[in-house]
Amino acid sequence: MEVITTEAFLQQKNTRSTQLDVQLDDVVQEIIREVREKGDRALYYYTEAFDSVNLENLIVSEKEFKEANELVTDDFLSALKQAKSNIKDFHEAQKEKSWFYTKPDGIMLGQKVTPLERVGVYIPGGKAAYPSTALMNIIPAQLAGVEEIVITTPPQPNGKVNPYVLAAANELGIQTVYKIGGAQAIAALAYGTETIKKVAKIVGPGNAYVARAKKWVYGDVAIDMIAGPSEICIFADKSAPPSYIAADLLSQAEHDESATSICITTDREVANKVNSEIEKQVQQLERKDIIQKSLELNGRIILVNDLSEGFQLINSIAPEHLQLMIENPMDNLHAIKHAGAIFLGNYSPEPLGDYFAGPNHTLPTNGTAKFSSPLGVYDFVKRSSIINYSSSALDKATNSIIKLANTEGLTAHANSIEIRKEKR
Amino acid sequence: MEVITTEAFLQQKNTRSTQLDVQLDDVVQEIIREVREKGDRALYYYTEAFDSVNLENLIVSEKEFKEANELVTDDFLSALKQAKSNIKDFHEAQKEKSWFYTKPDGIMLGQKVTPLERVGVYIPGGKAAYPSTALMNIIPAQLAGVEEIVITTPPQPNGKVNPYVLAAANELGIQTVYKIGGAQAIAALAYGTETIKKVAKIVGPGNAYVARAKKWVYGDVAIDMIAGPSEICIFADKSAPPSYIAADLLSQAEHDESATSICITTDREVANKVNSEIEKQVQQLERKDIIQKSLELNGRIILVNDLSEGFQLINSIAPEHLQLMIENPMDNLHAIKHAGAIFLGNYSPEPLGDYFAGPNHTLPTNGTAKFSSPLGVYDFVKRSSIINYSSSALDKATNSIIKLANTEGLTAHANSIEIRKEKR
Repeated sequence: MEVITTEAFLQQKNTRSTQLDVQLDDVVQEIIREVREKGDRALYYYTEAFDSVNLENLIVSEKEFKEANELVTDDFLSALKQAKSNIKDFHEAQKEKSWFYTKPDGIMLGQKVTPLERVGVYIPGGKAAYPSTALMNIIPAQLAGVEEIVITTPPQPNGKVNPYVLAAANELGIQTVYKIGGAQAIAALAYGTETIKKVAKIVGPGNAYVARAKKWVYGDVAIDMIAGPSEICIFADKSAPPSYIAADLLSQAEHDESATSICITTDREVANKVNSEIEKQVQQLERKDIIQKSLELNGRIILVNDLSEGFQLINSIAPEHLQLMIENPMDNLHAIKHAGAIFLGNYSPEPLGDYFAGPNHTLPTNGTAKFSSPLGVYDFVKRSSIINYSSSALDKATNSIIKLANTEGLTAHANSIEIRKEKR
Repeated sequence: MEVITTEAFLQQKNTRSTQLDVQLDDVVQEIIREVREKGDRALYYYTEAFDSVNLENLIVSEKEFKEANELVTDDFLSALKQAKSNIKDFHEAQKEKSWFYTKPDGIMLGQKVTPLERVGVYIPGGKAAYPSTALMNIIPAQLAGVEEIVITTPPQPNGKVNPYVLAAANELGIQTVYKIGGAQAIAALAYGTETIKKVAKIVGPGNAYVARAKKWVYGDVAIDMIAGPSEICIFADKSAPPSYIAADLLSQAEHDESATSICITTDREVANKVNSEIEKQVQQLERKDIIQKSLELNGRIILVNDLSEGFQLINSIAPEHLQLMIENPMDNLHAIKHAGAIFLGNYSPEPLGDYFAGPNHTLPTNGTAKFSSPLGVYDFVKRSSIINYSSSALDKATNSIIKLANTEGLTAHANSIEIRKEKR
């Protein structure tokens, strides 16, 4: 990987944007229109057109669930259960309570927390299986108290759904899985069809079609985020083992060619050793071609003069995953303003967080950690304000409210307060 | 107003949607492109084109702040200060803390809460003044710890900014106010110009151009919500004074013709009396024409058989403002699933919440209370997950993580865990 300075890196970095890709948008908008107009019929049509599958039914049957459970190994199920338990533990701590307080004169103010009623989880298909997506998206929704959670995922060429995804769904008690992928799945969840009920929120990752469809339906339905390619940023000083750093960069790069793997280091020797470790380790890896292409495109080692320059650079990148492989990482946590997840020390590699530790792996990408959070229980509830004034409390507020309403030219607002004064 | 049944109401209700208005979008997208390309020059150009003002400077000067403060009355300032104090009190209770927990073997997991760095608040211009918008959008951001908050608002024909808005900004300690409105203001906040720095989040209401521009820049920058016309839903039984109900419906209707004012009642006599009260009160109101048009279009009284039918209807509407003018409203709070703000009893009219009580007046409209919350301190922070494993803790997790990674076909992920095992 190229070893460069902060300055050179910032010059290379082009401002990425989610602005229009006109051609993609035309296709996606047509799909959305068709699904809204034709319902299930459009879903069957697009599944044949895009997934080359002639579905008999949109919903995974009980028999298919059973078959899937027989296909997966006990090893897998046991690992899945352990991950589930860790993810539950962590997300329990995110639960929010309703609250209220009172003031003299009979004033009660508060905030009521209510779960969303129905949530749709999109799980990508394709060659790889994504049972971890099911865990990470469904567990926080369940903890929030969402009554109805459905999965939608594209069918494999044989018309079935990936057995690992089904086994994960089953482990979580999810009974409704639709065999629909792409923009058509997003449209169906957003607007409903004969078979699929409209949901309040759509979560889960997907390809470019899914991402654009989510942007289009946003507002009519809530969405989690529009995720871009995955990113890692490792900040290492001379205390960090170069072989670990290399392995972690490689693990990020295997996601796809557009994944970004960055190492920031204060130590030139670390930079050099990481590079030779990468050369060595990559030879053994199955996804070697993707990795090499990805590192060439978006892999960089950035040499900084000191920790402070590194922290500043990290905050300007706002990485999805940040590994702090420096001495006393906890003491430096205050310096990190923007990152999706922060992994501390030499024994907290990103895959630990992807699958197992507990915090969510759905994280803000592409610099959006400057304003977004990991997926969490808070994404599956909403709040209502509570306002309860007594007659005497309103009386004391009357003059101020009328003054403010009149200033804004809203005299009927003033009247609504005034009338309560006259009548007492 | 028409008195109808639940069934008739649900048939009338057309599904509103934020889908494309192609012509508006063409204009808005061109404005965004121009601002991104030409920066300040485009801002001056559009301000002349749309606001008929030839600006000398984009920023409100210290002198203009002073002039504004001299123009507003002490009455107004004192009401503003009282509202500010109430809003602060309520939003204080929304503050979130970072947290962590530990597990045996040296595991530490947590969530770090960090404020957004820079926030832009859009305040509409036009004939009316909106000092309350400044309070409601800025106070939660300040409590969240946002370092830099800027306002943008369209100039009046004389090239100045509304003095009440400036006085409110001043009271809150905001020093940067831009004289820019419309889609061009949103584009400038989202992408930055020579004068205006890019922000992390844009909040505040606006006209159709502002709303569409917010939808377009969403993803490159965070936004609060895409607000539709304002709505009130009053649920009244025979204990509610018809004159109060009428006054509150009228206050909603004066916002604009597309505002929605709905009364749901279990009592036909209440329905009839509300109608005659409306006839009487509307005669005295300044914005009579807007009100009458609005009530004709979107005003309805819905007669329900019992409380339970009423609650079900309310949840299907998911109103922005809900007034529960029934006996023992607090005992029935559990039945309300979806509403932006809930006003309890006969002495908690909506204008109390618009200006004064403390909870935010930026609320989810158009049924989005099914998945959205009032604006709050939580909108101005984001979270980062913290993961810290010791060598021995990772050791115990090794097999499970490798199993899950291999199942997903990600062998470089497995390698990142494996290598740490070998090296110990």
